[in-house]
Amino acid sequence: MIKVGIVGGTGYTGVELLRLLAMHPRVSLQCVTSRSESGRMVSDLYPNLRGHLDLPFTTPDLSQLSKCDVVFFATPNGVAMQSANDLLNAGVKVIDLAADFRIKDLELWSRWYGLEHACPDRVAEAVYGLPEVNREKIRSAQLVACPGCYPTAVQLGFLPLLEHGLVHTDLLIADVKSGVSGAGRQANVSTLLCEASESIKAYGVAGHRHLPEITQGLEEVSKNLIGLTFVPHLTPMIRGIHGTLYAVIKPEIKHNEQDIYEIFRERYKSEPFVDVMPLGSEPETRSVKGANTCRLAVYKPANAKTIVVLSVIDNLVKGAAGQAVQNLNLMFGLDESEGLGQVALLP
Amino acid sequence: MIKVGIVGGTGYTGVELLRLLAMHPRVSLQCVTSRSESGRMVSDLYPNLRGHLDLPFTTPDLSQLSKCDVVFFATPNGVAMQSANDLLNAGVKVIDLAADFRIKDLELWSRWYGLEHACPDRVAEAVYGLPEVNREKIRSAQLVACPGCYPTAVQLGFLPLLEHGLVHTDLLIADVKSGVSGAGRQANVSTLLCEASESIKAYGVAGHRHLPEITQGLEEVSKNLIGLTFVPHLTPMIRGIHGTLYAVIKPEIKHNEQDIYEIFRERYKSEPFVDVMPLGSEPETRSVKGANTCRLAVYKPANAKTIVVLSVIDNLVKGAAGQAVQNLNLMFGLDESEGLGQVALLP
Amino acid sequence: MIKVGIVGGTGYTGVELLRLLAMHPRVSLQCVTSRSESGRMVSDLYPNLRGHLDLPFTTPDLSQLSKCDVVFFATPNGVAMQSANDLLNAGVKVIDLAADFRIKDLELWSRWYGLEHACPDRVAEAVYGLPEVNREKIRSAQLVACPGCYPTAVQLGFLPLLEHGLVHTDLLIADVKSGVSGAGRQANVSTLLCEASESIKAYGVAGHRHLPEITQGLEEVSKNLIGLTFVPHLTPMIRGIHGTLYAVIKPEIKHNEQDIYEIFRERYKSEPFVDVMPLGSEPETRSVKGANTCRLAVYKPANAKTIVVLSVIDNLVKGAAGQAVQNLNLMFGLDESEGLGQVALLP
Amino acid sequence: MIKVGIVGGTGYTGVELLRLLAMHPRVSLQCVTSRSESGRMVSDLYPNLRGHLDLPFTTPDLSQLSKCDVVFFATPNGVAMQSANDLLNAGVKVIDLAADFRIKDLELWSRWYGLEHACPDRVAEAVYGLPEVNREKIRSAQLVACPGCYPTAVQLGFLPLLEHGLVHTDLLIADVKSGVSGAGRQANVSTLLCEASESIKAYGVAGHRHLPEITQGLEEVSKNLIGLTFVPHLTPMIRGIHGTLYAVIKPEIKHNEQDIYEIFRERYKSEPFVDVMPLGSEPETRSVKGANTCRLAVYKPANAKTIVVLSVIDNLVKGAAGQAVQNLNLMFGLDESEGLGQVALLP
Repeated sequence: MIKVGIVGGTGYTGVELLRLLAMHPRVSLQCVTSRSESGRMVSDLYPNLRGHLDLPFTTPDLSQLSKCDVVFFATPNGVAMQSANDLLNAGVKVIDLAADFRIKDLELWSRWYGLEHACPDRVAEAVYGLPEVNREKIRSAQLVACPGCYPTAVQLGFLPLLEHGLVHTDLLIADVKSGVSGAGRQANVSTLLCEASESIKAYGVAGHRHLPEITQGLEEVSKNLIGLTFVPHLTPMIRGIHGTLYAVIKPEIKHNEQDIYEIFRERYKSEPFVDVMPLGSEPETRSVKGANTCRLAVYKPANAKTIVVLSVIDNLVKGAAGQAVQNLNLMFGLDESEGLGQVALLP
Repeated sequence: MIKVGIVGGTGYTGVELLRLLAMHPRVSLQCVTSRSESGRMVSDLYPNLRGHLDLPFTTPDLSQLSKCDVVFFATPNGVAMQSANDLLNAGVKVIDLAADFRIKDLELWSRWYGLEHACPDRVAEAVYGLPEVNREKIRSAQLVACPGCYPTAVQLGFLPLLEHGLVHTDLLIADVKSGVSGAGRQANVSTLLCEASESIKAYGVAGHRHLPEITQGLEEVSKNLIGLTFVPHLTPMIRGIHGTLYAVIKPEIKHNEQDIYEIFRERYKSEPFVDVMPLGSEPETRSVKGANTCRLAVYKPANAKTIVVLSVIDNLVKGAAGQAVQNLNLMFGLDESEGLGQVALLP
Repeated sequence: MIKVGIVGGTGYTGVELLRLLAMHPRVSLQCVTSRSESGRMVSDLYPNLRGHLDLPFTTPDLSQLSKCDVVFFATPNGVAMQSANDLLNAGVKVIDLAADFRIKDLELWSRWYGLEHACPDRVAEAVYGLPEVNREKIRSAQLVACPGCYPTAVQLGFLPLLEHGLVHTDLLIADVKSGVSGAGRQANVSTLLCEASESIKAYGVAGHRHLPEITQGLEEVSKNLIGLTFVPHLTPMIRGIHGTLYAVIKPEIKHNEQDIYEIFRERYKSEPFVDVMPLGSEPETRSVKGANTCRLAVYKPANAKTIVVLSVIDNLVKGAAGQAVQNLNLMFGLDESEGLGQVALLP
Repeated sequence: MIKVGIVGGTGYTGVELLRLLAMHPRVSLQCVTSRSESGRMVSDLYPNLRGHLDLPFTTPDLSQLSKCDVVFFATPNGVAMQSANDLLNAGVKVIDLAADFRIKDLELWSRWYGLEHACPDRVAEAVYGLPEVNREKIRSAQLVACPGCYPTAVQLGFLPLLEHGLVHTDLLIADVKSGVSGAGRQANVSTLLCEASESIKAYGVAGHRHLPEITQGLEEVSKNLIGLTFVPHLTPMIRGIHGTLYAVIKPEIKHNEQDIYEIFRERYKSEPFVDVMPLGSEPETRSVKGANTCRLAVYKPANAKTIVVLSVIDNLVKGAAGQAVQNLNLMFGLDESEGLGQVALLP
C-alpha cells in the first residue's frame, strides 16, 4: 500500500481527493491536515465520508508527513512551495494541485500570483502533470505540478490542432464555462447560491491566472508564439467545465471535418481518459460528472474559417483531484486507471 | 460471474442500475432491453457509460432473458407482471424495481394502479425488498419487489418508533421532499427545467400510490392500524429524498431525546446502509448523492409532543437501483455491500 | 410624494425594497444608508437598478433621516432598536423589517436573539405588521414591526382554522421549505451554491427564532396555548417559501373539505394579497415570485385526522419588502395595493 | 386603450407577453387564443396571472381578432404566415414573435425552416423589429417581425464595431449561452430538469436557424459579407442570454479599449433599453431578469488581436415579449418605454 498524506483537505479539491483515495485499492491514507479544522473528524465536516474514512484533521507536521510515500497539496496557491523542499529532501514525492510549480518563468509566475517564489530551485525540475503530454516524465518525477482545471480542458482540445499545424496560433479563442466549485469553498458573496444561480457572467476578461499556464503549454507543443483570447464564465452548476475552442484554419489546409476528427481520434486513441466523440456529438458536462474523463468533439462549421472544438471535464476530477490520482498511479508504476474507474453520475 | 439481464434500461432507474452494475465485480451484464431504443448502443443514449458498457439495447426476448441468472425490471408499473412468471418458471430470479409485486392486497393494488393484476399468484410469494426488515426472506427469494423511493425513506425513519411502541400510530405525518428524477425520464411539461426549477410544490395530497405501500409496511411492524398523512413535494434538484417525519409521543412514554437516539442506533447498528447520525445533526440529501445510504437524525423538540425524524436517501440508489443491487447481493449470497462502496459525490 | 429613507440597503430585503420603491408612484427615495458601502452608487452594487435609481449609499445620519416621512430598517436584528426612538421622537414613522419589535415579551426576545433590548419602551406600542390581522392598528401606527417570512406564511395558513376553533392547538405542525435568500446576503459557506444547491436539509429543528413569533401570533388569535412543531428547511432555490401545515381536527368537528375551503375563502375574500385557490390546487412558490401574494390551498386527506394547508409566498416580498410597502401604504392612507401590482415572474 | 389580441398564449413568450400587457396602462386585452386550451381560464394554466387577467383561452377566430387594433403571434414558426394577410387586410397591425417574417430571402427561409412560405408577398414589407436599427420604419409599420433572442443579443453587441468598420467581418465569433426557456414549453426529454440542470452543452454547431437571421442583420449594417461562427449553448437556468462576442481588429485600427467603449456609449446613448456598462464591468444575466434591457461591456484583452463584447438580455423580454411591446409602443405612437419600466428581479 502506498502511504499518502494530504495537506489541506478542507476545500473541494481536498474532499474530492478523499473521495477518490477512499475508493483506491492501492493507497493507505495516513493523515489529512488542516490548521483550521485540526482535531475534527474529516467525516464530520464531510458526512459523505462517514463509514469510509476514520481520520481526524491534524495540524500539518513535517515529521509525520515525511513518513508518507507521497504528499498531495490541496492548498491555496503559495502553500506547497513552503514545504515541498523539505519533503522532497526526505524522499517523499509531492503532487501539488495548486499553481506553485506550474509556471517555469518565475517572474511571470510572480506577476500573476502576486508572491515571490519560496522554492525557485524546484520549479525547473517539477513536471507539469498532464499525462497526455508528459506521461514519461511523470513516471519518474519526484514533484508534479497538476494542471489547472481550465488549462486541462483547453490544452487537450487545442493539442491536436497545434501538433499538426492546422491553425493560426495567434488567433486562438477559448470561451470556457465553469461550474461554481472552481471558485473553491470560500465564504464569498459572489458564489452564494443567490448570487450565482440563475445567472451567467464572464469574468477575468482582462486577464486570468490560467492564461499564462495555457499559453506556456500550447507554446511548448506548437513551437510558436501563442495569441490566445481566454474568457472564463461562471455558470450556475456545481461541477463541470465546458470549453468551446475556436481556431482559424490556415488557408493552405484543406482538411474537411472528417479529416480533423481522424486526427483527434488518432491522437487520443490510447488515452484512457480522453474520449473523442463521434462527429456531430454534443458533449455534456454531466457526462463526466465525478469521472476522470475529458470528452471532445470537433466541428468545422460551413461557411466559416474556423474549427470549433468542444471539450468537457469535471473540474474537480480530470481538472484537479482525478488527474492528481492519475499522476500518482504513474509515479508509482500502477495501472494508470487504478481507482479511477467511476462511471459519471447521470442524471 | 452472475449473469444479469435488464428489462427497460432507458429510464433513470435503468441508467443508475447500469452505472452500479458496470462497477460491480461479480456481475456480467448480458442484455439490456428497450423496445423504443432497440439497436442503439446504450452508451449512445447515456454517454457516461462510454468505455464502461459495450452493449446495444435489444428487444425483450424471453429466450435470451431465460439464460440469465437474474433479471431486473426497471420498467413502468404493469410490465414486470407480464413476464415474471415465465422467467421464474425458467429458474431465473426476478427483481422488480416497479410496483407490481409490492402490495399484497390485490384489490388495493388495482385501485391505486388502475390495472388488473396479470400475475396474481406470484404476489404472495414475492418478498418486499427492504433488507432492514426482510433480510432473511430476501436471501431465499426468487422474486423480490423493491420498495418505492418514498416508502424506503419513510419506513426506515418510522420503524424504530413503531417497533418500540413509542408513538400514536393514528397520527403519523410524513412530509417528504423529492428531487425531480423521481418523476422519471418522461417528456412531461411539469418536470421541464423551466417548470420545476426555482419552485416547490406539494402534490398528491389527496392520495399518492406510495401511501398504501408505506401503510402496509408500517402495519406489519406495528401490528396496529396506521393513520398516516403523507405529503410528497417536488423540489428543484435532480436526486434526493428528504423525509421529515412527525409522530406524537404516547403520554406514558418518558424517553428523552437521547433515549430515542439510542433506540435508533441500536436498531441500525449492524446495518451497512443505514447511518444514524449524532444528536443535533442535519442530514443533507447531498451527503448520499450516488450512494446506497439512508442517513437518519432524531429530534424531540422542546415544548412539543412530537418526535421528528429526518431521513435522507438518494431516490435512485437506496430508493431504487442501489437497493435492487443490495437485494441481488443477498439473493446470491454475496457480501451485501459488494459493488455498493461508492462514496457520495459532494459537492 | 412620501419621503422615504432606507437604513441598510445592501442586503436582499434591502434591494427588494429598492426594486419595489423605485416603481412606487407615490414615493420619493431620499437616502439609502450603508456603513460598509458608503459613497458607492447603489446601482453599482445592484446593476438591476441602473437607470432606475441614482443615489449613492450614505453613512447613516440622524439629521438626514429625520427629514423623511418614514424610514425603513432593512438591517440585521438589533440595529433598528438603536435609532428608532430618535426617529419616532422626530415625528418620523418607522417600519422595521428585522425582529427588534416583533416580540412583546422582552425576556423571551432576549433569550432568542441574545441581546438586551435597547428600546424596550417602544415594544409595546409597536404594531405587528400583518395587515390581514392588524390592518386598523397599522393605519395609525408610528412604528410597525414587519413579520418574518416564515411567520407570515405559517400564520396566514393557520389563522382560519384557529379562529374557528377547528383543530387542536397543542399539535400544530409547520413543515416549511425556504429558498436560500432567506439566509441573507452574508458570506457564509453554508449558503454557497456548491453547498446549498442539489440538496435539501432541515435546520433549527431544536428551535428557531421564528417559533416564538409564530406562537405569539397564533395565541393571540386562538386565545389558547399553542404547541407548535416548526421545522424549517433549506431548499435549492433563490426565492420562495412553501409552508405545509398540519393540524389535527377536533373530534367534534364534522366539516368536510369543502366546508373548510369555504371558511378560508370567506376569511380572505377581501384581502388583496391572499389568494385561496380552488380545491385540489397545488400552489407553486414560483406563482408568487416577485409578487406580494400569499396563495393558499386546503386539504382534508382521506382516512386521516388532519387538515393540511399549503401556503406559499415570496419570502422577500410578502415575507419582507412587499409586506413592508403594504404597511407603508396603510400608514399613509394610500391604496393598500399601490406599487404592488407586479405579476409574478413565471417561468 | 389599444385593443390587443394574442394568438398562441400558452408558451413562454405568450405568458411573458401576458405578464407585460397585464401591467401596461394603455392596452386592453381582448382575447388570448389557444386551440389546445380553449375554454380554460388563462390564470388556471398560469396562476401567476390570478387576479390580473380574467379571460379564458379561446379558439382563434378571425372575426374576433379583426376587431383588435393589433394582434401578437406568440406561436410556433409557420403559424403567423397563415393568418397575417387577412388581419392586415382588415386593418389590424400584426406583431409576430416567431420567425415567419424575419428573413427577406424566401428561399433561404425555406431551407432553414423546412416550410414553403404561405404569405410571401408580405415578407418584403415586414419590418424587422429591432428598434435600435429600424425605429423609424417600425413607427409606420403594419407588420413587424420581432427578432429572435440570440439575434437580438448578438446584433446589439456587434453593431457599433461593424458600423465603424473596426473589425474583420469574415472572422466574427458569437459564443452564446442561453437559459432553457429559449427552448419553449414543449414536453421534450432534453429540457427536463434532470437532463438540463447541472450541465452545459453546445448545440447546433453545424448550423442554427438564427445564423442566417444574424448574418442578414449584420450584412445590412456592415455592407460586407459576414463570416460568422455562431455556437449556442444550453445552460442550466430558466431565463437569460449571455453573448460573448469575438471580433478581430483590423491592423490599421489603433483604438484602445477606452476608444471602443466611447464608440459604444455614443452609439447607444439615447437608447432606453441598451445599457453600456463602465469599462471593466461583468454584466450578469440576472441583472436583466424580467426587464427589457440589453447590457453591454467591451474589452480589448492585452496581447490579443480581438475585441470582446459581452451582451446580456432576458431572452423572454428583450429577446421576445418585451421587444414586442416596445414595437407596439412605437407602432402606436406611445412612449417607447410605456409598460416596460420593470426593474429586474435580483436576486
